[in-house]
Amino acid sequence: MKTIEPKILKGFRDFLPEQMAIRQKIFSIIKNVFQSYGFDPLETPSLEYAKILLEKSGEEANKLIYRFKDQGNRDVALRYDLTVPLSRVIAQYPDIPKPFKRYQIQPVWRADKPQKGRYREFTQCDVDIVGSSSPLADAEIIVIIYDILKKIGFENFIIRINSRQILFSIMQSAGVPQNKTLSVIQSIDKLDKISFEEVKQELITKNIKPEIIEKIFRLIKKAKPDLFLQQVLSLVKKLDVPKNFFRFDPVLARGLDYYTGPICEAIIEESKIGSIAGGGRYDKLIGMFTDKDIPACGTTIGIDRIIDVIKELNLWPELSSTTTQVLVTLFDKFFLNQAIEISQMLRSENINTEIYLDFEDRLEKQLKYADKKGIPFAVIFGPEEIQKNTVILKNLKTRTQKEIQKSNFIKEIKNKI
Amino acid sequence: MKTIEPKILKGFRDFLPEQMAIRQKIFSIIKNVFQSYGFDPLETPSLEYAKILLEKSGEEANKLIYRFKDQGNRDVALRYDLTVPLSRVIAQYPDIPKPFKRYQIQPVWRADKPQKGRYREFTQCDVDIVGSSSPLADAEIIVIIYDILKKIGFENFIIRINSRQILFSIMQSAGVPQNKTLSVIQSIDKLDKISFEEVKQELITKNIKPEIIEKIFRLIKKAKPDLFLQQVLSLVKKLDVPKNFFRFDPVLARGLDYYTGPICEAIIEESKIGSIAGGGRYDKLIGMFTDKDIPACGTTIGIDRIIDVIKELNLWPELSSTTTQVLVTLFDKFFLNQAIEISQMLRSENINTEIYLDFEDRLEKQLKYADKKGIPFAVIFGPEEIQKNTVILKNLKTRTQKEIQKSNFIKEIKNKI
Repeated sequence: MKTIEPKILKGFRDFLPEQMAIRQKIFSIIKNVFQSYGFDPLETPSLEYAKILLEKSGEEANKLIYRFKDQGNRDVALRYDLTVPLSRVIAQYPDIPKPFKRYQIQPVWRADKPQKGRYREFTQCDVDIVGSSSPLADAEIIVIIYDILKKIGFENFIIRINSRQILFSIMQSAGVPQNKTLSVIQSIDKLDKISFEEVKQELITKNIKPEIIEKIFRLIKKAKPDLFLQQVLSLVKKLDVPKNFFRFDPVLARGLDYYTGPICEAIIEESKIGSIAGGGRYDKLIGMFTDKDIPACGTTIGIDRIIDVIKELNLWPELSSTTTQVLVTLFDKFFLNQAIEISQMLRSENINTEIYLDFEDRLEKQLKYADKKGIPFAVIFGPEEIQKNTVILKNLKTRTQKEIQKSNFIKEIKNKI
Repeated sequence: MKTIEPKILKGFRDFLPEQMAIRQKIFSIIKNVFQSYGFDPLETPSLEYAKILLEKSGEEANKLIYRFKDQGNRDVALRYDLTVPLSRVIAQYPDIPKPFKRYQIQPVWRADKPQKGRYREFTQCDVDIVGSSSPLADAEIIVIIYDILKKIGFENFIIRINSRQILFSIMQSAGVPQNKTLSVIQSIDKLDKISFEEVKQELITKNIKPEIIEKIFRLIKKAKPDLFLQQVLSLVKKLDVPKNFFRFDPVLARGLDYYTGPICEAIIEESKIGSIAGGGRYDKLIGMFTDKDIPACGTTIGIDRIIDVIKELNLWPELSSTTTQVLVTLFDKFFLNQAIEISQMLRSENINTEIYLDFEDRLEKQLKYADKKGIPFAVIFGPEEIQKNTVILKNLKTRTQKEIQKSNFIKEIKNKI
């Protein structure tokens, strides 16, 4: 019978219920925070014309884009990120009210080398404000990162904040040639991972003169927020982010080429995982599809990394692998009607209730099933209980049980759950 | 500046916030119903080895499968449905507790001719029970369809129920050659759309003898539920589905080849859209990837069609296109601190609150923005209100407004929203 080996592609993942539980809880927290600041959801197609994705992404990215000819011989590609589709949407629907505050949680595909924490299909979670130059927009993005991390339960994290404008001025003052500015910034970005000496070596191989390098380092050490960033930082504080959760950090540079203003990234201090959220202002990117520049800022929330840290720190020890709260067991097929009745009573009180499906299985097997699935409670009754008009509620975690009058049943069970 | 035309591929869709609002409400209803019966979520990758998708789907489907060579020259394809990935998962993880009650809501891709209501990427929503032969499993699937349609707000719908076993016996009794059984069943399936005479013509072109056709029709008219289906129907009734919402219908056949037992489909009677949910028992399909057959049953919920009917019947006239409930307006930049304070108060009461971002815009422009976005309430205050310690709450739907003491503010606003 078996004709094909059931095998998943390397770098791709199945999310079984246990993994889905943690994902759904995170998405729910994130969406609630987004919505609390007035952001609405957007979804775009998985496939786009290849040229739309290829134009912006740069050589490195283009190698990773899944691209093919479809049945109509169109050159198509799978979404590589959520920023390019957002830019396309902004250009294609000029009537969208601005500022457009949107969030987008969808998979993206990158034919990257799979390794721990790096997949070929993964969910990106972006939140952006398109059409506002206000420092309040930049501040909101930072506050949203803070709110999300706080609500997930992280206690020790820091949001590093800088501005590309500050870095650009430093490069200019230090005498970095215009065409090398971005490349130098990318090396500077490594200063939180490797030493000054190593970054220096890297810059030398990029043909930056030693005296320029010294000047860059000196200017970075003395750097102060510019006027716009001062406003942003003061608004972040007014929006109730405590001082110890964010700081100006002139060494922060961020990898992407397209940032033009404030940039930020969040680090969990108890973990070595690196940044788990990062973004900034990009006022020139959307112009690619439109006749004029449209200012924008936003951040990506790194779902996969956040999940890794939640597991590493055991932040959600109580999280159940199922949303089912009660298994109603079956004594035998003659008790089916009562079991159905009890199940429906529980469901009508919004208690997620599974009724055991197979009439013939012994109670032991039924309880084992509940255990394996992670259902916390079981309702048990047989001829004796029917006569006394009771049921037994068994807590499968503590292995304790209690006999309850059927008339009090719902009230008692709601208290326990 | 504009270098690329912003264009979406034909047959693909963007979901702007307005469309997302209706989608998210439906998904939330559907998930709650699934979970109330003990179903948990599953997600599988978008890309699979092509041969996994191609084996089962049949020639017609194979033409529609998006298939290509990836960067590692692997023959890969985009998910065509959710049933084949489910089967692969069942075979790949034999330790999954059974019965496995899972739901899956993910996009699928079909290179079909785009037309009204048919897209090349669309969200499928499947719910299945794998590993149970109990009639209670079949009944639960039917009850779930009923619950979902009821909770969406449909009043006039019917779930047609039949069994492939009944159709198989009829074909056998009528003398249909074994190898033509499925083809005849597919013609019979059209009896609710075209006349007996037309179906007869179709069967004649399929080389079925007239006397056999007559016999098929006669037997269908006299058909009664078999023992298993009787149990299913009686359980559906016990699970509180009113009699007028489901009926045995021996003409129902369903298109797919793989059904082996009870089958069902739901029709909205006020609409001509066709079936909006359909499924059945398929006890032989999963064997494709495993060494032994595993019984299973389930249904697909047709999200796109349901959305079309909700719009057609204007079922959710009150649904807002945004989840934002309040816009806090800005008199000018000197009122920013108070505006932030009010916004944070509202957010702490779980009211989704947007603060207007641009300090310079006139109130009129700010209110127009709220209108366009569909935000129902605006908070307005200027020097006068600050002095009186009040704010104005404006209802943007009724265009009425009320001045409220700031001390009562949260209580009053919560009442209105």
